[in-house]
Amino acid sequence: MTGKKNIAILGSTGSIGTQTMDVVRQHPERFCVFMISANNNAELLVQQAVAFNVPNVVICNPEKYAWVKAQLPGVNVQLGIDAACELVQAPQVDVVVAAMVGFSGLKPTLAAIRASKTLALANKETLVAAGELVMGEARRFNAPIYPVDSEHSAIFQCLQGAMGNPIKLIHLTASGGPFRTWPREQIASARKDQALKHPNWDMGAKITIDSATMMNKGFEVIEAKWLFGVDAGQIHVVVHPQSVIHSMVEFEDGAVLAQLGCPDMRLPIQLALSYPERLGLEGDRLDFGALKDLSFMEPDHDKFPCLQLAFYALGRGGNIPCAMNAANEAAVAAYLHDKIGFYDIPDTISRVMAAIPYIGNPSLEDIFATHQEAYDMACKSF
Amino acid sequence: MTGKKNIAILGSTGSIGTQTMDVVRQHPERFCVFMISANNNAELLVQQAVAFNVPNVVICNPEKYAWVKAQLPGVNVQLGIDAACELVQAPQVDVVVAAMVGFSGLKPTLAAIRASKTLALANKETLVAAGELVMGEARRFNAPIYPVDSEHSAIFQCLQGAMGNPIKLIHLTASGGPFRTWPREQIASARKDQALKHPNWDMGAKITIDSATMMNKGFEVIEAKWLFGVDAGQIHVVVHPQSVIHSMVEFEDGAVLAQLGCPDMRLPIQLALSYPERLGLEGDRLDFGALKDLSFMEPDHDKFPCLQLAFYALGRGGNIPCAMNAANEAAVAAYLHDKIGFYDIPDTISRVMAAIPYIGNPSLEDIFATHQEAYDMACKSF
Repeated sequence: MTGKKNIAILGSTGSIGTQTMDVVRQHPERFCVFMISANNNAELLVQQAVAFNVPNVVICNPEKYAWVKAQLPGVNVQLGIDAACELVQAPQVDVVVAAMVGFSGLKPTLAAIRASKTLALANKETLVAAGELVMGEARRFNAPIYPVDSEHSAIFQCLQGAMGNPIKLIHLTASGGPFRTWPREQIASARKDQALKHPNWDMGAKITIDSATMMNKGFEVIEAKWLFGVDAGQIHVVVHPQSVIHSMVEFEDGAVLAQLGCPDMRLPIQLALSYPERLGLEGDRLDFGALKDLSFMEPDHDKFPCLQLAFYALGRGGNIPCAMNAANEAAVAAYLHDKIGFYDIPDTISRVMAAIPYIGNPSLEDIFATHQEAYDMACKSF
Repeated sequence: MTGKKNIAILGSTGSIGTQTMDVVRQHPERFCVFMISANNNAELLVQQAVAFNVPNVVICNPEKYAWVKAQLPGVNVQLGIDAACELVQAPQVDVVVAAMVGFSGLKPTLAAIRASKTLALANKETLVAAGELVMGEARRFNAPIYPVDSEHSAIFQCLQGAMGNPIKLIHLTASGGPFRTWPREQIASARKDQALKHPNWDMGAKITIDSATMMNKGFEVIEAKWLFGVDAGQIHVVVHPQSVIHSMVEFEDGAVLAQLGCPDMRLPIQLALSYPERLGLEGDRLDFGALKDLSFMEPDHDKFPCLQLAFYALGRGGNIPCAMNAANEAAVAAYLHDKIGFYDIPDTISRVMAAIPYIGNPSLEDIFATHQEAYDMACKSF
């Protein structure tokens, strides 16, 4: 038994953040929270700080800073992303949970990596936009990255049994989202409240829309490439509406290893915190006697063009995946504000990817510049 | 790259034996065959010896010895099980494939273990009849045992990714056999040609009947207990008619690891030979896009009482599993000779298990004596 692990949570008030807090609550003898940060949800941030006795708290919205500070006497309350970047590097921190949404997670994620921290990575946009850079820094600073989403955690778990054998194929499972069975014409006029109703997973708004467009699966393809060192041709997306098999790895001899479980993000979160140990976890267990049939099908690229856009971006490489991600962030925000229709999301992404100047080996500065340029380019069209 | 592995195959003309030969054929640079043995099929044995240039050949049927010897000039042809026991202990042998059928596999399996050979174990009756003894000898002589059936190989593969975490549950999958959907009354009058039609696997007659009664799954429960050191309460049998998921391991946190694949015994055979390396393997691959639904259900103990008999035998321990196995061997032989009906198989087993004198910590002599006594007891009732 090792001592308690000190955890820093970037984005503690979001879906992954609150579930991380729940994992900590279940194992007070194993984990304590050193730092939490939130963008805007000051009320929940303060509640968490009090409930978990968190010594360091960061709020990014300057308008809420004074209020948070007043609520938490004796607590080190800081303002802004740079404060978060500094705090994750503190020598006390053992694991950094990167659960911010979107491109904004890149800076603090890199800060954690450069301090050689163990990273529990939920912020997939980080690897989409800057996978080569981030993985290069992780190698350079010897910072382990444990994936926090159900698919990549499943692949990671399967690979523990690889015995040194190379991956032949990754079968990345996709629920297909809320519009899997809808005809294209109906999807075209889907409202955001319909897109926000994910059949299996309760997640934040951004990722739920990304699931409806299947951009999320495209992101995961790119993420898988970087995390597991495979080519695009080794990643096979398979629609599996029940989300029971969280993903699979196939080997040279045809053996396929899979990880199954109830849809519960606390499992990959906890494993990333406790790896290599598995701890008990409150919640449902798979009941095979009661399980409905598990089904599988190929994705429908006509209805969900975002997935192909991601494969295309991965093929081109350079700054193109970053541009794709930025255009998607802008388009999803516009869709959530009822400014554009559902298929305007892939159309916007496609247009921005075609228009953005290509950079082959982007520096971090190039990545930030591409993000801004692509984001602005997308916004101009709404 | 290590040198070629020398393989001894006990039961080379059976289903597992011939598939082992096919694996060797696919990897002539990795494997060569040092010894083959067969009970009765002299023609195939001679063919194999010629095709694979096997230097040592054992035939168990004394009536066929002279003929085999005449066919194989320059080959060391020997008669009988004791010759096989001696040959598997030869210093040249790296891996012994134990693929004999039934209790007769116990002696040569123990011989291999006592020479500290790596064992590729297909002969599950060995562990059913004498699990405690066999595993004790394997520990004492430091002989690795790699399972050669799809279920235990699957569990073995999943456990490679256990990262030192204990098993919570084993989900042992069962196809349900040819009578899964038949009503009990119809099963009661099932003919052997119907029982021999397994829906997914092409196997020998004995194991195919064992699959029809689900005694085979009962054997596998006992085998799993010994191979993986779990209690009966940690083994959950789940009927999965498609035989795509070959078995699963559940951990404390609810994560379930599974191994999937086409029904092809050459995969577990090859892995047992090449472990920890995975080699290429000719044959079909799972096609998730074309896969039919995977379904799961609890076993029907009323229709298939043998499974409960095995759990009962495991609970009582001592020489009872050995008696169960012997009674089953006698009953299956009688059924295959049209002497008894389908449900006379569990009835015979149940009666013999109740009548046999209990021995708590059986010696090897006790095991042989129990086998003979139980076998004779069963035969008397036919």
